Amino acid sequence: MANEWATFGADLHLELRGPRLRAGLMDALREAVRSGRLEAGTRLPSSRSLAADLGMARNTVADAYAELVAEGWLTARQGSGTRVARRAEPRRPEPRRAESGRPEPGRVDPHRAAPRRAEPSPEGGPAVAPPARARSRPATPAHNLKAGTPDLASFPRAEWLKAYRRALTAAPNEAFGYGDPRGRIELRTVLAEYLARARGVYARPERIVVCAGFVHGLMLIGQVLRSRGVRDVAIESYGLGLHAGLLTGAGLGTPVLPFDERGTRVEESGPLGSAGAVLMTAAHQFPLGGALPPDRRAEVVDWARASGGFVLEDDYDGEFRYDRQPVGALQGLDPERVVYLGTASKSLAPGLRLAWMVLPESLVGEVVAAKGVVDWVSSAPDQLAFAEFLGSGAYDRHVRAMRLRYRRRRDQLVAAVAAHSPETRVSGIAAGLHAVLALPPGTEQEVLRAAAWNGLAVQGVGQFRRPTVPATLDGLVVGYATPPDSAWQSALQALCRVLPQAPGGV
Amino acid sequence: MANEWATFGADLHLELRGPRLRAGLMDALREAVRSGRLEAGTRLPSSRSLAADLGMARNTVADAYAELVAEGWLTARQGSGTRVARRAEPRRPEPRRAESGRPEPGRVDPHRAAPRRAEPSPEGGPAVAPPARARSRPATPAHNLKAGTPDLASFPRAEWLKAYRRALTAAPNEAFGYGDPRGRIELRTVLAEYLARARGVYARPERIVVCAGFVHGLMLIGQVLRSRGVRDVAIESYGLGLHAGLLTGAGLGTPVLPFDERGTRVEESGPLGSAGAVLMTAAHQFPLGGALPPDRRAEVVDWARASGGFVLEDDYDGEFRYDRQPVGALQGLDPERVVYLGTASKSLAPGLRLAWMVLPESLVGEVVAAKGVVDWVSSAPDQLAFAEFLGSGAYDRHVRAMRLRYRRRRDQLVAAVAAHSPETRVSGIAAGLHAVLALPPGTEQEVLRAAAWNGLAVQGVGQFRRPTVPATLDGLVVGYATPPDSAWQSALQALCRVLPQAPGGV
Repeated sequence: MANEWATFGADLHLELRGPRLRAGLMDALREAVRSGRLEAGTRLPSSRSLAADLGMARNTVADAYAELVAEGWLTARQGSGTRVARRAEPRRPEPRRAESGRPEPGRVDPHRAAPRRAEPSPEGGPAVAPPARARSRPATPAHNLKAGTPDLASFPRAEWLKAYRRALTAAPNEAFGYGDPRGRIELRTVLAEYLARARGVYARPERIVVCAGFVHGLMLIGQVLRSRGVRDVAIESYGLGLHAGLLTGAGLGTPVLPFDERGTRVEESGPLGSAGAVLMTAAHQFPLGGALPPDRRAEVVDWARASGGFVLEDDYDGEFRYDRQPVGALQGLDPERVVYLGTASKSLAPGLRLAWMVLPESLVGEVVAAKGVVDWVSSAPDQLAFAEFLGSGAYDRHVRAMRLRYRRRRDQLVAAVAAHSPETRVSGIAAGLHAVLALPPGTEQEVLRAAAWNGLAVQGVGQFRRPTVPATLDGLVVGYATPPDSAWQSALQALCRVLPQAPGGV
Repeated sequence: MANEWATFGADLHLELRGPRLRAGLMDALREAVRSGRLEAGTRLPSSRSLAADLGMARNTVADAYAELVAEGWLTARQGSGTRVARRAEPRRPEPRRAESGRPEPGRVDPHRAAPRRAEPSPEGGPAVAPPARARSRPATPAHNLKAGTPDLASFPRAEWLKAYRRALTAAPNEAFGYGDPRGRIELRTVLAEYLARARGVYARPERIVVCAGFVHGLMLIGQVLRSRGVRDVAIESYGLGLHAGLLTGAGLGTPVLPFDERGTRVEESGPLGSAGAVLMTAAHQFPLGGALPPDRRAEVVDWARASGGFVLEDDYDGEFRYDRQPVGALQGLDPERVVYLGTASKSLAPGLRLAWMVLPESLVGEVVAAKGVVDWVSSAPDQLAFAEFLGSGAYDRHVRAMRLRYRRRRDQLVAAVAAHSPETRVSGIAAGLHAVLALPPGTEQEVLRAAAWNGLAVQGVGQFRRPTVPATLDGLVVGYATPPDSAWQSALQALCRVLPQAPGGV
């Protein structure tokens, strides 16, 4: 926490205490920017000089700077040093409505995806499409590499039960009654602490609303936006059809943002210009796997500020980043314009139905009212158990253990693909629970058929492509976290068998 | 269960085994009627002669007959004996839509409540209205007799924890993943058994949908009915404003059914005639407390059959009946036209967020689709724990213990009111967790103010009156189950102080 780590004076004097210097430095710098003590455009000391001042290794400072650049807090340009980014200025929440501040009508949108229809894709469907060939094949897939589920065999039953027992024993009687629609205060309090520490989220308990999964949260937000008069919520070119359908079901249009090799494009002159909100997987695009580049993080927040729009940040697997510290949440850049949505579904288990929103102050009342209408949905003992699980450090320990396990699997995946199918490029491997294996153009369906024939459940990128987006990518989305340890190696072998130029293929 | 208890031959031969003869006889008779083996109009043997045939006490048979008359399965008329009721004929589900079979437009509705507006009532509000007088009074009520919550201090923590531990330990890994939107099959299986046994519900696991509370279930049903083209769902003259608001929010009209001294009137010539469904608390009207008389139970099911409509049966406290066996669920009369909604909120605790629907076959697909859109919401470990809790008999033991405790409180309430306010009539005492104390006309607001002044949270019947219903009743709705044992006597004394002609009043 910022308070634990740093005290700022007028001369940028930081008093750092405790072991986690780098994270603490980042928190302190974020807080200084957020509060306005470091103004936009301010040039920071060089990493060498700050490190000397602080008695820290220079790399620690340089890494912190680089991360904050990646998150959009700072900018770094050759010759001009590291500066506080423009849009990271302090702000006061404005009571604007989402429909205000829109661009003039008649603007042309040169980036909107071409209307050419790709083949309809069974997005989010429960299984791969059956092969065109009518030959018999395994009825139930023997191997499961579908993305979206963590290794369920790793659910920490004993630790969870311990937390549940403690929570149930200590719960006040009123916890068993009808509760606050925002969720139990005990849980919101530890969540606020955790999200600030682990994800750089600006979270206060009174802005957190516990919900029964990302989908439940998105449904509530969609209702609120619609009743505010928002017509369109922009979505990424690739994503879950379930989420788009939910927005459509709430009466919202879903214009599709274009993408290029750097990720989703968020120009105001694009579909964003007419949208009241945008749904984004900024830290780890689902399913393609990249992090939104710093300049685009800044750009989309700038758009939200200028237009009065909202960014809906789907931080579904933010805890899992392997080769460096996690990219902090976009929400920290502007808590009044970003709705942060997190979940225990990937870090712990979907079966718990525990998720949370951190809301701009201006939306709290409306979201609570919308949730009240459908009743509060998460059981109080569960919420108290999760609060205990988080507060006791059991959650951190579990996430650390799973991060090691998933990273090992990722490394094995990369090595196996390199050995069996050296032409196949693996991307999206820096984070998360899945990777994308690029396939030669036009071969995705054939590989999916081969997978089905081999008893391997896996999805193609086409299954996540929005209907209006041209089919320019062929690839497999490989959920390497999905199988239990005991089934992982055989699933990996099955995958290798269906890849192009696999020496041991069928 | 029927199969365990009886085998019917052409000559009405029942082979009863096991200890619970009366319940078993009722199940067997219901099943015989449901299956068509006993046709409508068939005259049953006299209780004396059937008792002799079965080797049972005559009272046992007479009681079973009386209960089945109360439930609408049988009719009993002076001189014509006991017969199978007309509407209890066997039926095949018809694929009619709810809008078919409506009466001709232009029919006059003589029973619709007069348009005279009663004073607006803060239905379902969190607290009694502040007194008109500006004198200071206790900020937080010292005593709580608001209806709708069981004694939370009695939540069986140790037993629940035991069930949770067993369930979590035994759960298959897949239980931690994304689940069946209907809920865990383990829970639906034991629920089907329990509901058939305890509530006379015709339940099969594949027709049960677990939900996160009655409100969640009603929201789903409302959505489905609306998308089927239903415009109106009739409601009772008294009820929770929250429920009416939920239907309105789903785009449905809520015409109000009239009531008389026998309860809610359900003539087809009334508001029901233009409705696609009706929401009823048939077993125990909330808040007035009566059971819907047998002829009206029959009448509303007849209406549903003839019109293709649905009865939404809110069986919120069906487990709690004190002076005789519970009135069986209306649903048993026609599982294809009655949606049964039950909950653990009164029998166990609202904080668990566990409830269930038993659906007509024709609605299952649509309700599951509606629920899928908002995601499945109940945690899998909770569902498995509740399955274990039910299956192990812990639920029955808890309900039995609470029934004794609540009955004792009810008896104390009746005795205290008789002693302190002998003119005050107490009604609705045969069942449930609350009673209604009739007040002299025009005095309800004054008594509520006195209650607030005495630190007593309690609601008047006016707070549950639909806005269009004339204010012909004055009374208090006393939730005698609400306080913990330690606070019950003082709450009762506070209540007696505010009643008319209370010798020890303020």
